[in-house]
Order: sequence, then structure tokens, then C-alpha cells
Amino acid sequence: MDLNRLLNPKSIAIVGASDTPGKTGCIIFNLLRKSERVLYPVNPKKESLFNFKAYQSIEELPDGIDMAILATSAKVSVSATKSCVDKSIPFVVIVAAGFSEIGPDGLELEKELQNVIKNTETRILGPNSLGVFLPKEKIDTIFVEHGDQALSNGGGIATIVQSGSVGVEALGYASNTGIGMRAFVGLGNKCDLNETDFLSHFADDQDTNCLAFYLENIEDGVEFLKQAKAASMKKPVVILKAGISASGASAVASHTGKLAGSGEVVGGAFKQFGIQRVYDDEELCDAAKVLSLSKPAQGNRVAVITPAGGYGIMCTDYIEREDNRARLQMAQIAEATKERIRRETFDFASVRNPIDITASADDRMFIASLDAMLDDPGVDIIICNAFFAPPGITDNLVPLIAQRSDITTKPILVFTNYGPYTDLHLKRFFEAGIPGFPSVNRVIRAARFLVERTDILNRRAAQFIF
Amino acid sequence: MDLNRLLNPKSIAIVGASDTPGKTGCIIFNLLRKSERVLYPVNPKKESLFNFKAYQSIEELPDGIDMAILATSAKVSVSATKSCVDKSIPFVVIVAAGFSEIGPDGLELEKELQNVIKNTETRILGPNSLGVFLPKEKIDTIFVEHGDQALSNGGGIATIVQSGSVGVEALGYASNTGIGMRAFVGLGNKCDLNETDFLSHFADDQDTNCLAFYLENIEDGVEFLKQAKAASMKKPVVILKAGISASGASAVASHTGKLAGSGEVVGGAFKQFGIQRVYDDEELCDAAKVLSLSKPAQGNRVAVITPAGGYGIMCTDYIEREDNRARLQMAQIAEATKERIRRETFDFASVRNPIDITASADDRMFIASLDAMLDDPGVDIIICNAFFAPPGITDNLVPLIAQRSDITTKPILVFTNYGPYTDLHLKRFFEAGIPGFPSVNRVIRAARFLVERTDILNRRAAQFIF
Repeated sequence: MDLNRLLNPKSIAIVGASDTPGKTGCIIFNLLRKSERVLYPVNPKKESLFNFKAYQSIEELPDGIDMAILATSAKVSVSATKSCVDKSIPFVVIVAAGFSEIGPDGLELEKELQNVIKNTETRILGPNSLGVFLPKEKIDTIFVEHGDQALSNGGGIATIVQSGSVGVEALGYASNTGIGMRAFVGLGNKCDLNETDFLSHFADDQDTNCLAFYLENIEDGVEFLKQAKAASMKKPVVILKAGISASGASAVASHTGKLAGSGEVVGGAFKQFGIQRVYDDEELCDAAKVLSLSKPAQGNRVAVITPAGGYGIMCTDYIEREDNRARLQMAQIAEATKERIRRETFDFASVRNPIDITASADDRMFIASLDAMLDDPGVDIIICNAFFAPPGITDNLVPLIAQRSDITTKPILVFTNYGPYTDLHLKRFFEAGIPGFPSVNRVIRAARFLVERTDILNRRAAQFIF
Repeated sequence: MDLNRLLNPKSIAIVGASDTPGKTGCIIFNLLRKSERVLYPVNPKKESLFNFKAYQSIEELPDGIDMAILATSAKVSVSATKSCVDKSIPFVVIVAAGFSEIGPDGLELEKELQNVIKNTETRILGPNSLGVFLPKEKIDTIFVEHGDQALSNGGGIATIVQSGSVGVEALGYASNTGIGMRAFVGLGNKCDLNETDFLSHFADDQDTNCLAFYLENIEDGVEFLKQAKAASMKKPVVILKAGISASGASAVASHTGKLAGSGEVVGGAFKQFGIQRVYDDEELCDAAKVLSLSKPAQGNRVAVITPAGGYGIMCTDYIEREDNRARLQMAQIAEATKERIRRETFDFASVRNPIDITASADDRMFIASLDAMLDDPGVDIIICNAFFAPPGITDNLVPLIAQRSDITTKPILVFTNYGPYTDLHLKRFFEAGIPGFPSVNRVIRAARFLVERTDILNRRAAQFIF
């Protein structure tokens, strides 16, 4: 399905547009005023809104409008959708809650919506949708806090979420520490358009390099898995499927009014179809971040560089621990490499892996050790502990690591934690194109996602599926 | 051993005190000037420092000084310690690095230190120690960024760490989101005083309600475990023991020059001796936070209250997932409780556990649901998702939950994540005495630590060990 008039519309009708601060219709209108698109606010009680001519009704609108967003109550959304159908508007985004998620009455209303568009050219996103956000296109209809300024540079991740709250958090997280969003789509109740439509769209989108989903149920499992398999040959597909446990699944049922697939069945299918599975919103963001920003890993041999011995030890413990995700191993450092690091740093530096250059080290020594790791053929992935407490370690580490990252074929991952400055440092690494994480646990997990992706591609290659 | 003259000294000598901003001797002197103790700066090149008379040498100092902190180079630290011994100063804190951690030459120097105090009354903390921090006593010698202002209210956790960097992070984390520190001790290279000394001190300290350790090796395993077992009858003992894997252990060896115990042996012993084990610094802080702030859990049946369906589902998935820590289960809510919640919220609220009061809920409904959970005898632990995106949910939730927490016997844990405001909200909950966490994963893990503690106490009771 061609979703371009939804995701990159030339003209947009805002039904229920308002100039009253705080109102949903005002927030959305304000966001879309930055979109450089032709806007048609609809409000029967206004002649103009922020110097835009206000239309009294949908009927009055000109023909050929690409998309209508309805900032109205649930009930009004139904009649407004009918009017959009009559106007041949191809896409209607419905943000109102109060449909199937609230029980039988709402379900009735949602069925009316489905009836209204039956056998028409009009498609619905929602109801109960957070809307869409595409930084590159300057399209933003997300009416809750989502750190949009922090995301203005955009990135490669298409995030498609069924739950509003999880969506908010994915965006909020992004604004704290940096995550490159290509698109954000709030599916809402999925009375019409669903995950498969957006999967297939973003799989073919040149600007998307990673697909990230939060799903509570999958409308058409067979079709979705088929398309996910095809997509995963081109780019990573990460899914947080909530409702894996028995009670979780029953909670899904009451949250969305729909049945969730059994956990084990879903899990098995995901693996078989090249989907990378995560278990909460933090993991979803971390996996998407590393898969979007990092180069692919050629193997699972990890080297760790740290000016703080304790963190090197913890990394080693995590790397060698069994995990239900991809296995990692500590790289064996070549003797010549060890010599080289000792020469560039200190006699007393620990040149076995982890490379502990000690708190006496400076930026130059850190980078010399990184260069040695990049040259060592026994190392596939490099994890840098950008720990800024030692006096010789400065902010210059960020551009210096970025220079290396730009020219190497090996993934370089960073973890940094330094009290109140952690998020700030993570943001700087993100802006330099380097995936950064705030803890040992999370950076090692990120490395596993990379190796898991490598395993998926290798398995495919071995099976001649390509 | 009586550590009072170290941890609550009346008089302190600062050897190498300075007024040059940025110098370690200046940072420490400035911190201690807030201590309201009698201070004796020692600096041969100065007559006075910040209006304090400067002493030319340790020999010149008056008798009876409780503690000397040496902000000098490694080499000078040895002779200065000798002078402190001659002055009968009972405790010397050595912050200089450059001892056993840097190899044979440093090891030689460290042995000299040990020889200097042999058969004397003087004890050394360090070398390579971050120093000590006790907010209640206003004693702070930690010369790196550690968010001391945020910690000024103090709390019940005694944190004893072997690694400087991990120590910095424990404090930095605290300053971001709140963690109540009773004391912080940087053990450094442990040439003399070690973890067992501080374990036994804080086990008997009335103001300490939780002991948290980061250790790379344990000097006298048998004695430490014996004391830990005794301590764990009185208060929780949490240990992050780095070096559990084979390579991790060898990294420990090169980091400290000492042998680390084998991972499995340590793990088995910990369990047997009532020690709660964690695997990274984030877990260490989270476990200490919940064990210090929360009431004990009477059982493992968890109720979840959320205005965001998706998070309720994820909680359920995490609760029902197997974990190598204590097992949790979703509480079965009584029919009468369900009726009560429906009456207080909405017909369409999901009153099975998780309690999904929907994004239409307000503070009153949230608290009514919490009250219902507190009254339901089938619920042991309550997890509140303080999600502030819904318009009806406001900051008032913090004092309202705190009121309940103050009078109930059930643990109430909170998780909250709301983009850039997450840390702010966590801090407010902390200040209200409620343990808060920023993700599903972490709040569920925190609940497991509580139940693990209950299991330890029950096992003890069953074995008549008390």
C-alpha cells in the first residue's frame, strides 16, 4: 500500500483545530504549522485561526487534500470520517480515545468507523493513535511531550507502536540521550491500517535502516511474518511483543480488546523469520539505536578499553555470562598488539583484554589503544568505556573516537556514566554518530544485538535464502 | 575494631593541603572546611591557607589528632605515614595512586607502607582510596564529582567500594535520582583496613539500614562471610563481586594485584550466608535503594497499578518470567476489591491484575485503586506506574502515595518514565521516602530484591539460626 499521502502529505486538514493553548487541536495545529505544508484548519466556531482561514466544515474544504487529522471527540470522529470519505480524502488520522479500548460501547463506535470506510478509498490510522512524526518531512502530529527538538536531526529508525505510553517513552528517551528517528507511527486501536502496512512501507524506504515495533497483538500474523522475513534481509527488524506470559496475554486482551498470540509460538516464529526480540521499551530503544548507528559486526570477539579497572572487570563478567541472546567472547589480543599498547601507554597498563589503561591515561593513550584494537584481526567489536573522571580524559575523546568510527569497518560502542553528566555525554556521542549507553549491562546487551543480527544474516546466507 | 576516630573524627590533619583550585589537596581541604571539625592543614610552603594556620610538617602538629588524610604523591605518602605513626595518629587515609595497582615498583612502595605501620596503633585506609563520605557527620573527603549536594539529607545505605570509578558512579547516580547514603568508603588497595572492618562497623551502626559493597577480592573470606551472616540477620547485605567469570577474575588480578575467588565458589557462599548478590553498579544502587527505603515484603504476590495499559502488560511479563533471583507472582485480586476499583474508577477499567485505570484516570482514582490494593489481603507488594502523561495524573500523586506508604505495612514501589522529566520525578519520590525506578525491568528487579530478603529471613527463622 502506498502510504505517501499519509506520511508525506502536501495538504493536511486539521479537524477540530483550535487556538486555545493546551487543547489537542491547538497542539497539533501548532506542530503542523512548522511542516511547510498547505494546512486547512476546520472549526465551525472560528473564522480564522493563527492567520489561517478556518473552514466551518469538512464539506467546505477544497478537493484533493491528502490527509485529515481529527482532533475531535470519539463520537464526532465517526461523522467527521464519513465527511472525509465523501471528500475522497485518502487518509484519516484519529487521535480520540474512547473506542474499543473502553469496552462494548466503544467497540460499537469503532465498528461504525470500519463501516464508514468499507469499500471506499479512505484509510484510517487509529483511532486512539498518537499520530505520526517524521523529522525529515517536518511532519509532526504527536500531541504529547516527545522531545521533538532533540530529534530534529532525525535518523534511520522507523518506530511503530501500538501503545501510546510506550510511544511517548520511546520519544522521551530519545530526547534525553539521542536516538535517530526516521519516523514514529502510533498505531492506536488499528481499526484499519496496522503494523503490516507500515512494515512494508518502511522496509522499502531508503531513509530507514532499522524497524522497531511495540506490538500487543499482530492482526495478520502470517502476512506480517512473511513481510518481516523479507524486510529483515534488508534491515534489522526489532520487536517488543508485550503479553508473552499467560497473565500478560490476558492483560493485552483487556487493554486492546484483541487476542494476543501465545508467547512461545510468537517467540519461535520471530527467530525463524529473522526478527530480533526485545522485552521492554528500554531494550527496544537500545537495540534500535545500536542497529541503526553501528556498522555490522563480523564476529563476536569483543575488546574492551577502559581507564577504570572495575568497569573492565564487570564488562568481562557480562560478556562471558550466558545469555539467551547472541553469545559474545572476549577477544584474544595478539602479542604484537599488547606490545604496541604498552609502548603507547604505560608499562603497568593491563594489556590483556580488558585493556585497562588506568586512570593515569590521557586521550592520546586511549585513542592509541583503540587504534591498536582496530588493527588487531582478532578483534571484531570494540567497547570503549568513555569514563571522564581521570584528569587526562577529556571531551576531546568524542571527536577522536568518531574519526576512527568513520573509517573503520568494526563496530565501536561506547559506554559512559558520570553522574549528572551522563546524558550529556551520551548525547554528544550520538551526535558524532556513535552508539553510546549508560551502563555495562546495556552496552554489552547492545553488542549482543549486533552479533544476533550478524547471525541472522549468516544463517540466511547459509540457507541460500537470498 | 573501633573506627569512630576515622569516621567521626574531632580533629583532622590534611597533609598536602593547598589553596590552588583543582588540586586534590585544595578540593579535600574545601570539603572538610564544611565539616565543623578542627582542621590542621600541613603544607611546608605556606604560612596560612584560607585563614587557617598552615603547619610546616606533621611533626609540628599538636598531639591527639584523630585522623590524617594524605593528599600527597605516592612516595611522599610513605614518609608522611611514618610521621603520623610517630605522632600516634590512629588513622591515615591515603588517596594517592601509584602503588600495587601499577605493578612491581608500586607493590614495593605498598609493602613499605605496611612495614611502617607494623606493630603500631596506626591504621591505613588505602592507598588509592577515594576517601570517606558521611553526610550526617558532614565528613567528606571525596575529591571527585559526586553530587554531594543532592546527598546532603543522607539516608541509611553504607556503601563500601574497592574501585574508585564504581564509587564515583554510585554517588553520581545518587545525585541524579536520589539514593540515601549513610556512608561511603573507598577501600582502595586495602593495604591495611579492608571490607571486613567496615562490614563489622556498619553492621552495628544504628543509622545504617543496608550494607552495599563493590568488591573485586575479599581479603579474608572466612571471616568476612561469618560477619556478613551475622550482619544479614540485622540488615540487608548486598554485594557486587566483580570477576565472576574466568577472564573477569584474571582482570581483577591485574587490576589489584590480588587473586579473586572463583565465581561459583563465591556465589554459593554468598547465598548460604544471607548475602544478596548483584552484577553491576546499577543493580547495586537499585538493590540498596529498595532495601533501604522499603518496608519488608510479607510475600511475593505483586499488584500493578497503571494508567498506561502497555506498561501493565510489560510488568506482568517480567513478573512471570523466570529469574535467578526471587520468584514473583501476579496477585489474585479479590472480587470485592475488583468491584471497589470499578466503582472508584471506570466501568471499562481493567480490574484484573494489572489494574489498568486507563489514561482517563485522575489522581483520586489512582489513589483509590492503591487503597483497594492495600486493603486486599491477597496482595503483598504494590507497584505503581506513576505515568504523568495522562492529563488527570499530576505531581500530587507523589505526596498522596507517600501518605499511604507512611502508614501501610506493604511495600509500595514506583516506576516512572516521562522523557526528560524522569529523573526529576524519581527525585521527588525519593524525597518522599518512596523507592522509584525508571523502567519496568528495574522496578520488577527491585521487587525481587525485597522478596529475596524476605526469603533469607524466613530461611533463617526456619533454621533457628537466630
